[in-house]
This record gives sequence, C-alpha cells and structure tokens, in this order.
Amino acid sequence: MNQPRVLVIGAGAAGLAAATRAKRVHPEAAVTVFESGREFSRGTCSLPYYLSGEIEHREYLQGVSAQELAEAGVELHLETQVLEIHPHQRRVITAGPTLSYDRLIVATGSRPRATPFTDLAADLPGFWKLKTLADADKILADLRALGPRSVAVVGGGYVGLEVAEALRERGLHVTLFQRNSTVARLHPRVDQLVEETFRRAGIEIRRSVEVEALTREQGSFSLSSRALDKKPQTERFDAVALAHGIEPDARLLERAGARLGPAGGVVVSARGETSLSNVYACGDGVELPNVWGGTPRWVPLATTAARLGRVCGENAVGGSLRIGSCQGALTVRLFDGQLGSLGLPEDWAESIEVPFHWGSDRPPFARRRGGGGVIFLDRRSEKIRGLQAFGAEASHLVDLASLACEQGMTLEELSLQDFSYTPPLSSLWHPLYLAYRTRRKLSSRPQVGGVRQ
Amino acid sequence: MNQPRVLVIGAGAAGLAAATRAKRVHPEAAVTVFESGREFSRGTCSLPYYLSGEIEHREYLQGVSAQELAEAGVELHLETQVLEIHPHQRRVITAGPTLSYDRLIVATGSRPRATPFTDLAADLPGFWKLKTLADADKILADLRALGPRSVAVVGGGYVGLEVAEALRERGLHVTLFQRNSTVARLHPRVDQLVEETFRRAGIEIRRSVEVEALTREQGSFSLSSRALDKKPQTERFDAVALAHGIEPDARLLERAGARLGPAGGVVVSARGETSLSNVYACGDGVELPNVWGGTPRWVPLATTAARLGRVCGENAVGGSLRIGSCQGALTVRLFDGQLGSLGLPEDWAESIEVPFHWGSDRPPFARRRGGGGVIFLDRRSEKIRGLQAFGAEASHLVDLASLACEQGMTLEELSLQDFSYTPPLSSLWHPLYLAYRTRRKLSSRPQVGGVRQ
Repeated sequence: MNQPRVLVIGAGAAGLAAATRAKRVHPEAAVTVFESGREFSRGTCSLPYYLSGEIEHREYLQGVSAQELAEAGVELHLETQVLEIHPHQRRVITAGPTLSYDRLIVATGSRPRATPFTDLAADLPGFWKLKTLADADKILADLRALGPRSVAVVGGGYVGLEVAEALRERGLHVTLFQRNSTVARLHPRVDQLVEETFRRAGIEIRRSVEVEALTREQGSFSLSSRALDKKPQTERFDAVALAHGIEPDARLLERAGARLGPAGGVVVSARGETSLSNVYACGDGVELPNVWGGTPRWVPLATTAARLGRVCGENAVGGSLRIGSCQGALTVRLFDGQLGSLGLPEDWAESIEVPFHWGSDRPPFARRRGGGGVIFLDRRSEKIRGLQAFGAEASHLVDLASLACEQGMTLEELSLQDFSYTPPLSSLWHPLYLAYRTRRKLSSRPQVGGVRQ
Repeated sequence: MNQPRVLVIGAGAAGLAAATRAKRVHPEAAVTVFESGREFSRGTCSLPYYLSGEIEHREYLQGVSAQELAEAGVELHLETQVLEIHPHQRRVITAGPTLSYDRLIVATGSRPRATPFTDLAADLPGFWKLKTLADADKILADLRALGPRSVAVVGGGYVGLEVAEALRERGLHVTLFQRNSTVARLHPRVDQLVEETFRRAGIEIRRSVEVEALTREQGSFSLSSRALDKKPQTERFDAVALAHGIEPDARLLERAGARLGPAGGVVVSARGETSLSNVYACGDGVELPNVWGGTPRWVPLATTAARLGRVCGENAVGGSLRIGSCQGALTVRLFDGQLGSLGLPEDWAESIEVPFHWGSDRPPFARRRGGGGVIFLDRRSEKIRGLQAFGAEASHLVDLASLACEQGMTLEELSLQDFSYTPPLSSLWHPLYLAYRTRRKLSSRPQVGGVRQ
C-alpha cells in the first residue's frame, strides 16, 4: 500500500492516538477520522477536576487541538455519524457520503449503563451523570442556579469516588451509596483506607445498600434505599449524581458481524485486529486478550485506549506491534491519597492475598510516604496477579507490579530487585519487600533449614 | 546443620540485614555480630539530613535498636575488632577470644579515600568530611563554635551534592568544586538540571576544576584550584568539606586470601559467596557479578548492601537465594527535585543516549510532575542499560527502568506496558513512552511502510 486509505471512527483518546500514529509512521497514508459528536479529544479523565474547580477553564480539557491534527495531516469530520460498516466491500456508510477504506479502525468507546430511574427525565435539574463535557456543564450550571446543599452519589466505582470528591470540594454534603460491600470492588483492607480518607473529608459512604426508588418532589429528591436485612429508608437530597457505570458501545461492529466478548465489547487480538478482515478496534468498546488464559477482558481505561490506539494505528499501515499486558493498572487521586489498582476482580478472587503496609510512625520522616494495600498472587505459581494500595506511593507500586505481572515474576523475585532509596522520600525497606516478608510469614511452606520443616 | 554458628563482621546495613535474616529463617542458629566501632545501624544515608537539621535528633539515625536485636536473638559485640580470619580452620581471631564458625559473613564496608591534603590534621576546626555520625557531630559543633559563613565542598559525587545542600540549608555560602566536567559523572543534560536547581538555591558549582592546594591560615582556609587551561586561582573559605569518595574496605578478607575485583572489593557471587569456602560477604566492601558480562562491579549503595545482606543471611543457614540485578539504582533528593540514576558510568559510555522530558507547561497541572533525563540503550539489542533523570518522578522512573533492565526489555517493549495515570498526578503519555517516541525519531532505522525506507 503506497497511499493506504485509513478511516477511523471515533475521536476520543483511542481513535486520535490511532490516527496520529498511522500518519506519523506512514506519512503518505490518507487518514480520516469521523466523530458523531461535536467534541473530540475531550479529556474525559479530567472531567472530575473540571467539576471540582481544580481545572478552572473549559478549554484546558482539550487534549489535541484541531490545528494540531491538521498540522499532523489528519482529516477530522465532526458531527458525522457512521451508520453502517460493510467489511466485505471495505466501505462505511455515513449520513452523507459512502466511503471506501483500505483499513478501518473503530473506536466508538462506551456509554453509560441504562438508568434504573426511567421516570425521571435526563435533563431534570439536580439530576446528574458525568460522562461528557456537556454533563459537567449541566452540573456546574445547576450548582449555580439551584445552590444544592446535599447530594446522593449513586455508585461507588472509581468515577463515583471522583465525583463524590469533586462535589465535596464544591461544598456539598455528599452521601455515597454503594451496592457492594466495598467501594470499587476493593479488598476490605483497602476499602477501609478509602473510608477513613472520605470520612475525614466529610463524605459518608453507605455500603451494601440498594437504591430502590428515586422521585423528585418540591424541588428535591426522595431516595429510598435498603441495606441488607434492613427496612427501606427514605431520605431527601437536593441533588442526585448517578455513577452506576458504563458499558462498551460496540453496536456498529456488532451489526457488521464482528465477534463480541462476554462484556459485550468487540474482541480484538494483541495487534488490535477484530474478527473482520482489515478492521481494527480500540478504546473502551473492545475486549482484550487475557494473559491468564481465560475469556477476553474488558478494561475501559484511557491508558489502555491510547496504547491500543497506537498499536492499531501502526498496524493499519503495515506494522506488527503487540500491546503489552492489559491488567487494568490505574490510579485515582482521592484527597491527599492515591488509590492504585492492578488486576480485575476475578483475578483478585482467585488469588492469595498478601496484606502489606509501608511508611513509618517514627520521626523524622513520619508518614511522609506511608500507605497500605494487598498484593494478589497466583495460587500455584506465586506470580503477581494484582495489587491494590492506598497511600502516597500507590501509583508507583501499581506500575512496578504491572511490569512484574507482565514479566511473570513472583513476589520473591520482585523483592530482590534493585530499587532506589533516599531517606526523605522512602524507606530502605521497599514496600514490595515488606509484602514479601509478610508472605513468608503467612506461608505454610517450610522455611529453609528452619524449625518449621 | 541443626544449630549452625554464624559469625557476622560489621554492624552496618548489610551485616545486620544478614544477621537478622539468618536468625529469622533458622531460629536455631547462633548468630553473633562483631563491630569494631561503638555504633551500629547508624543510618549513614540519613547523615546529610541530620547535618541540615531536617532530622532534629541524633537518636533518629538509629535504625535497629540494641533491644530489637536482642529480641530477635542476635548477639552484638561492639568495639570488638576482628584481627584475622582463618578460613581453613573456620576461625576468627579478635583482640579478645578466638572464635569458630560454621558460616562467616563479612560486611566491613568502605572507608573514605585518602585525603590529598595530608598536611592538615583531620581534627582541624572547619575541616570536614561526612562518613560517620562522629563526622556529622564535628561539623555541627564547628558550625556552633566557629559560625563559618563560607564553605568549599571538594567533590561533586552524590554525597558532595547532599553535603552542599545540607550546608546551604544551614545558611552557608557554598561553592562546590568538581574535577569532572559534570557532577556525579552525569550526562550534561541532567547535570544542567542539577545546576539550575543549585543555582536557584544559591550554590555555585565549579566544574573541570582541580583543587591543587589547601592550607589553613588565621582561622580560615586558602584553597588553590585550577580550571582546565587556566591559571591557578586562590580563594578563602571559612570551612572546607571533603567529599572525594570512598573505597572498599576489604583488608580483612584480602589478608585471608579472598579474590578481589578491579575496584579492590571482595568478589562475590549472586549468592553472596566469596572465593573462600563458607565465607560470604556483603556491603560496600564487595564487588558484584556484572549482568552485562564484564568484570565484577562495585556498587556501594545501602539498598544493594541490605539486599545482599539478606541473601547472605539466608544462604548462610542453608538457603539458595540469588540477588537480582545490581545496576546502581539510586535516588537523591536535591532541594525540590529528585535526581535518579541507574547504571554505572561505563554502561552509559557504551550506550545509545535517548534524551527525554515529561510534564507540561500547560495549565491546570503545569509542571507539577515535570522533569528531564536520558535513557541509555544497548547499541545492539536496544535493551535498557541505564537512566538518569531529574524531576518529580525520577525515583519512580529509576525503579521501572531497573526492573526493565533486569528483565532484558527494550524501550519499545517498555513503552507498550500497562502503566497507570490520573490527570492531577501524571500525563496520559508516560515519560518512558515519550522517550520511546524520541528514540524512534532519532533512529536511522526505516519506519514501517514509511517514506524513510
């Protein structure tokens, strides 16, 4: 292909990473992006910080600008809905023209799960979600117009936690309703650390609680919830923010006959290939190969989206990149702490749990970099399968554990690695070494030459 | 061995890590430590922070206490000089009794390189070095008694940089004399970042300057130095701090017939074995296997000392641990920045240099986590050989690069890994991915399908 024609559907992190990479690697390629909405490169991960006011200006949410895309030689069509994909003819049908392609990259992302509160109109004042910039604008407008004092956040996943923090920063009294027994499906130990931070910040978390009914009366909301084995309880809130999650938006490729995975996303290879010839996919709408050998996995994160976007962009113009592991490495800043997580709930459920903590109560550098967490190890091989941590070093630990997981390392191997140290920032005993010591203590394996043989 | 007798020589980080690990793994072992001095577990790395005042109390420098050692079942003899080792008889001779052992672990550490200024008495007021707690006490006493206003720090290695910062924090005017063209043998790009931070803090760095003479007259020092191709220059300073490095103290094992390496340290295997049967060694007095296949390497760092100490302690009672790579991963905090380094100067000299920087000038999270550095890649394989960085994330990057180096990963592989991200802490584009992009730009390799083929 001297001048391959590459079409990209979707102008979020994945689609634009794919488009710019394809053009950079193969400057002769004709790269065109179709986006159904009016916005592109919107920085979805930054929305909570726009909501809290930490990001003061709307334009700071723009990642790549239209001018930068034009300079990179990428053609962008906004408000252009792709209606159908015909993979055999290598054609896409839009509301306007029908276009042919050599390679197609689909990055249609995710959509909010359907709300259970179907009686309430989506544009009701004080009734919120946070998926798009328009959603954030609506919340900010309502805050100004209504001056709400209390809000119920329904859903304690990562976005729910971030929204709760942002609204607390705006001065609201926040109550978070969480259906599971812990937030973000965390281990109770790590959930507890989040709880303490939220309590100090004045946010109340209700766990194992189902929100059963929600109505609006006289300018506020009546919310009925029921905790396990308890009677329903009804409370009033000035506003309600729904954060009950997203699901893959794979409708376009599903209709074109692509294979879907258990979560409803398009199944792709480590090279970003779908089951359809010449069609790649990336972003929150795909499911990725499972390094642990099971079914494909849905890992809707901006980092994974951008990485797989690069892989798709390069491979669409002749490359053969493979994405590294996709174990869901993520960090969320919650007030003065970092919550870090690696692995999916099914990994954690099947693993040996090793609790650990780091930092010190002793002066002079007391608590500067302290925290706690759990490392998850494969039951047979003792290889790293995941990590959850809350504290000052969480993002660092997640990245190290992610690399070790991808390389198939055990916790013992990891504990013998060469990691840096300086007194004002860290302890001579690395948190991962401390975890290893705990593992040995907990282990029923005989110790070398020791009395427990 | 039901009740092995383990003798340890030296009660620094390495010796005590070995002793406590041996006892923990094999509770029946009789573990005895001999230390020639009066202090033990002194926290040498923390001395600069005691000097600056950031560590307020002397006792905070104590790592493990005598009571903790006693509770762990480790017997400690202070001020007990070991005079000779007789490996064939498995005996050590002290000033007091002669003792037999099953396994011996030698951790005699390092000593300051001989001063070139032999005319000056070591206890001269205002004439300083910083190797021991007693050295720090002398500096603090001199600061109180003499009230010096200016100091010359001779030697710009890591300790020289830390001493310069500490004395600046004490209010002195500091001039740092460095023989090489950069401090700490850093790449000019990273040296420049240190320079800027030091300049902002009011410390002057003189590079490529040899200090030729030093005398004391009328209560202050006269220091003659000569820059490359320039005339000698004489200046006066109220005090002088020598920081011209350390060397391995391997005298005891050398006399016993152990094999030494090119830097004069005792050569050990990855299991901590010396060339003498039943004799292990660890700490700043040893040289370690070179993963790049060359001669053994001297890597005098507390982290390496503690890790190899654990390895020796476990192996001395029947284990077979191997230390991971010893590539000199280190971090030094310099004012508001972190200086991180991985690899030794010979690694850097032989490698491809990839400059990189991270962070952003754009609001809202401008410069929060910015910095710059150089990644070093093997010329043939493109595997990671080292990294130098200065900035907010340097310790994090050093640890990731260290793990990648040990696992034999290329920068391209590393750039495709699953690393976490959250807007207030980091960029969607990981620093190591940005380095990879630079590498591709600089590379003369043809790009896939691109015009440069």
